[in-house]
Amino acid sequence: MGHTKDILEAIYERRSIREYTNQSVEDEVIKEIIRAGSWAPSGHNNQPWRFAVIRDPKMKSQIARQTIYGEIIDNAPVIIAVFADKSAMYDEVKDHMAIGACIQNMLLAVHALNLGAVWLGEILKNREKVRNILSLPQDLELMAVVVIGHPMRRDQKSTRMDINELIVKET
Amino acid sequence: MGHTKDILEAIYERRSIREYTNQSVEDEVIKEIIRAGSWAPSGHNNQPWRFAVIRDPKMKSQIARQTIYGEIIDNAPVIIAVFADKSAMYDEVKDHMAIGACIQNMLLAVHALNLGAVWLGEILKNREKVRNILSLPQDLELMAVVVIGHPMRRDQKSTRMDINELIVKET
Repeated sequence: MGHTKDILEAIYERRSIREYTNQSVEDEVIKEIIRAGSWAPSGHNNQPWRFAVIRDPKMKSQIARQTIYGEIIDNAPVIIAVFADKSAMYDEVKDHMAIGACIQNMLLAVHALNLGAVWLGEILKNREKVRNILSLPQDLELMAVVVIGHPMRRDQKSTRMDINELIVKET
Repeated sequence: MGHTKDILEAIYERRSIREYTNQSVEDEVIKEIIRAGSWAPSGHNNQPWRFAVIRDPKMKSQIARQTIYGEIIDNAPVIIAVFADKSAMYDEVKDHMAIGACIQNMLLAVHALNLGAVWLGEILKNREKVRNILSLPQDLELMAVVVIGHPMRRDQKSTRMDINELIVKET
């Protein structure tokens, strides 16, 4: 049951981490987080996700200015911008869910690797600007920015609805 | 590192399981799977996911007839239909990603609990019929059906693109 407990614990203990120490995150660790994301399921295994890894402070700061949460990005050692590749997509709703599954794998991998991350969505209002800053082709549509670093603290609380409110039918 | 290894292993070892034994799945286990789903992140923590648990063979068989993968549903002890609650949503794309994250948590919990599952999307072509079979209100939009059981076998192979093909930029 140790195995079971660890996986469920990771799911229940993971929190959005928005403050990081100055410590950098190794490139191999970033690769592992992306690899974990890539093992999400997708319709017809079409794997519509693509990733941009941004460490360069100047470029990171330009991206930070595209969201009201820019300070989080500025103070983090690395961000991963997650894109949908329109040329790989087959169904918008299903592909968006697959990319959500991919990002959840990334967040759980971050937690497993003793790092912290936050999934930023507000920046999507400037998805085209972010794409242009990164000089990426129009086929790539920004879906999220995952900000990653070593957690400054781990006392974040969160709440969820009772599952009995979420279950709308049982037969 | 055991902790880390277990979580990453679950992410890498999880497969779509489409054949099940006759063994039933306890109600408490289904609740745990739904609870794991509910701990996904969502924008403004709006938790747009809702769940219908279907064990009743007649109703399950009616739902099975809404997809070309009906045999998988007919041979499973239980299915969970995952809905988006339109009255809780705030941004279609972000809410769909959140529901994808929720489903991925469910699939990892299934794996952790030594069960098997497959995420069915093809059935969405008949999302309205499924909703009507379950007599659920129009605010609930079917997003996926997760079929769950005790795996008949665990020899499923899968492949993913090399992550170097997925990383479109590094700075």
